[in-house]
Amino acid sequence: MNNIISFIDENKERYIDELSNFLRMESISSSPQHKDETYRCAKWVESHLRDMGIDTVEFIETEGHPIIYAEWMGAPGKPIVLLYGHYDVQPVDPIELWTTGPFEPTIRNGDMYARGTTDDKGQVFTHFKSVEAYMRLHGSLPVNLKMIIEGEEEIGSANLEKFVRENKEKLKADIVLISDTSMYAKGVPTICYGLRGLSYFQIDLTGPDRDLHSGSFGGAVQNPAQALSEMLASLKDKNGKIKINGFYDDVRRLTKKEREAFARLPFNEKKYAKQLGVKELFGEKGYSTLERVWARPTFEINGMWSGFTGEGAKTVLPSKAHAKVSMRLVPDQDPKKIARMFKKHIKEIAPKNVKVELTEMHGAKPALAPIDSLGVQAATKALRKGFGKKPLYQREGGSIPIVVTFQQVLNATPVLLGFGLPTDNPHSPDEHLNLENFHNGVKTSAYFFDTLAGMSNGK
Amino acid sequence: MNNIISFIDENKERYIDELSNFLRMESISSSPQHKDETYRCAKWVESHLRDMGIDTVEFIETEGHPIIYAEWMGAPGKPIVLLYGHYDVQPVDPIELWTTGPFEPTIRNGDMYARGTTDDKGQVFTHFKSVEAYMRLHGSLPVNLKMIIEGEEEIGSANLEKFVRENKEKLKADIVLISDTSMYAKGVPTICYGLRGLSYFQIDLTGPDRDLHSGSFGGAVQNPAQALSEMLASLKDKNGKIKINGFYDDVRRLTKKEREAFARLPFNEKKYAKQLGVKELFGEKGYSTLERVWARPTFEINGMWSGFTGEGAKTVLPSKAHAKVSMRLVPDQDPKKIARMFKKHIKEIAPKNVKVELTEMHGAKPALAPIDSLGVQAATKALRKGFGKKPLYQREGGSIPIVVTFQQVLNATPVLLGFGLPTDNPHSPDEHLNLENFHNGVKTSAYFFDTLAGMSNGK
Repeated sequence: MNNIISFIDENKERYIDELSNFLRMESISSSPQHKDETYRCAKWVESHLRDMGIDTVEFIETEGHPIIYAEWMGAPGKPIVLLYGHYDVQPVDPIELWTTGPFEPTIRNGDMYARGTTDDKGQVFTHFKSVEAYMRLHGSLPVNLKMIIEGEEEIGSANLEKFVRENKEKLKADIVLISDTSMYAKGVPTICYGLRGLSYFQIDLTGPDRDLHSGSFGGAVQNPAQALSEMLASLKDKNGKIKINGFYDDVRRLTKKEREAFARLPFNEKKYAKQLGVKELFGEKGYSTLERVWARPTFEINGMWSGFTGEGAKTVLPSKAHAKVSMRLVPDQDPKKIARMFKKHIKEIAPKNVKVELTEMHGAKPALAPIDSLGVQAATKALRKGFGKKPLYQREGGSIPIVVTFQQVLNATPVLLGFGLPTDNPHSPDEHLNLENFHNGVKTSAYFFDTLAGMSNGK
Repeated sequence: MNNIISFIDENKERYIDELSNFLRMESISSSPQHKDETYRCAKWVESHLRDMGIDTVEFIETEGHPIIYAEWMGAPGKPIVLLYGHYDVQPVDPIELWTTGPFEPTIRNGDMYARGTTDDKGQVFTHFKSVEAYMRLHGSLPVNLKMIIEGEEEIGSANLEKFVRENKEKLKADIVLISDTSMYAKGVPTICYGLRGLSYFQIDLTGPDRDLHSGSFGGAVQNPAQALSEMLASLKDKNGKIKINGFYDDVRRLTKKEREAFARLPFNEKKYAKQLGVKELFGEKGYSTLERVWARPTFEINGMWSGFTGEGAKTVLPSKAHAKVSMRLVPDQDPKKIARMFKKHIKEIAPKNVKVELTEMHGAKPALAPIDSLGVQAATKALRKGFGKKPLYQREGGSIPIVVTFQQVLNATPVLLGFGLPTDNPHSPDEHLNLENFHNGVKTSAYFFDTLAGMSNGK
């Protein structure tokens, strides 16, 4: 291992130069004007993987942006790691809030600023460089490796979902390695072992069949906006508990160990509230903020609209009222079961004098990576060596649906090894990545492959 | 009177021709592109009043559209009637739903179709023609007459409000005569004796200081859309009663006589529900639909918006949530007192973890025209003669703020003599006016002036 680590230290500057080239390509997947740039970036990834010494590299055209698939299977008997990452990035607006251009990588105070630094080019690049070190020095890797680098993560991964389902055998792996999350805080190496699931609905209410004059008809009919407010209000009690029958039935309770671990994390309620611009935090009674965000299900109104929303006053009694709502789910809640429950409940509470339509928009299962799994244990040791500190285990409130696809379709255990920081501004202006984290990330990746190979030997 | 009525009968066809000219002008007050047409229409009204034999006609330029003021004060000792009407009309969209062009007056089945037929060119024109008959045949009117024909009724009458307040002495009148409402039904001559008032607010709630990811932060903070729903839901109980402390304190109870009169009106709940496209009607328990719409205060959400309202699903926890709400008020509720009450109540129910801002948009006092007043009694007799039937008394759920201004500033009793029908489609495609109603309206107007003059003599 020593020569690998020395090699990584010696090549630090080159890594930055190469990463800068990766970052300069404007691979905004959601923008039709950037289709060519996104394609060019995919091509760059393909040739970069070849340059690293990987022979099997496939450039897969899709109905959207290309998928790059690569594999090195020269370690028979060793685990198969599937590395997942994405080369596409978010749009850059509001562009005027960037200190330097989003596609002009710039280093300030040890951070590299550019769109995609933390999400996800910079993070996935740590693994490219560790693989390269092995291939250059040894001509081989300690484990078997498959790689999927896609270009549609920021727009829903629809073509990748299809690709995974259609190539189950080819993609077979023991562990899915993903670096697209954050560390708990600077200097605190972190493994994310839980993601929440999702059940997303649109609710459409219709009262009268056209907008009415609120003077001439106010008092005659149920106002659908009022009905919607009453329905939404009734879904939570004053302690923030969700009042859908059976909603909590399958929620896996936090273990005492987990609650203690969460409680030990440095977390300042007041500072957190101030960061979000609120006077006080709020949520389900009986749980700490981290517990609520990471390990308890929620119900949120994501959007709501009805009637007149322009400037001034219009005396309309609206015909329609709409809401977009979503529930974040935790193990072992099943989004399909929850969706059925939700539909049933909404139908039960809807007043007779309005028409209710429900549209299921999205569902995702919650994910848990068992801390005692081989992958997570290897990652724990690797982080300790790469960052010189024992890592934390944390969960994430968000959902990464593709993780669950990998789990379900490939039966692979996820390892979520985040080298970003919560303050990195992904999706926002001045996105950046700490270069020390990047550099330690390359080493951690190298340690991970080595440790995993050793552990799978019973070493 | 007989020769007046004969004259009106003989000139029927000419009236239709002249009204058609009036209707052809595209006097859409809200449309900057129609400013010249609206001005041309004002000029047309001015010269038409002169042609009718009225000498004092003033063309008053305002910051918006002109006001036409006219007077004939040759009946000393007799009451002064202030005739109010407007020459401006609503926009015509959706234009494709008109059977014939909105500015190409067309007669079908005894109805004249064009924008402004019922609201208000056709209705105000009934009085023009009765005044003309008197002036042509007698060179005088039985009562004193002042006229205000404005061009901004459809956009809020702001310049007229100012004009009335600044010309209190000049406009002094005993009775304000307005034909801008509807009859209860075809063949049922109607006097409107009550209008509701209004208190209109915008509510702005702020939770976190920016939109948050509903995954990463869902469960940490109060969602302002949820808080808004809960607040709005709490404003009414399940029987439709408004739960603001003191809200009903000043509500004048319906008299037994009024309730009986309302109950005698031909009203079919099922037919009415069907017309509005709802399964069943809904409102404050213990009151009939007409009572609720005409004589009970209401609370309505006029508009509501928060978070993501586009196509698809976005997992945002919104920073802000907004609602436009209004209360219709009845005698003796005072919009200022109600506004104070509402503000106090909202502040009391607002959760601590969101910021609430309230903007008062609009206030209007409710109005009642005493049925036993000279004006309403004269109108009752006039309608009986003009339509050959005893009129109904009804109230209106809407508000006409200028009526209250006339009442308060000029101390004039309103007489709301509507010749339209509820099915006339004002503000909608295929607006029309029944020509029999129009013709009987001209006669009713003539009878009104004569009857009023007689009654004020003690005749």
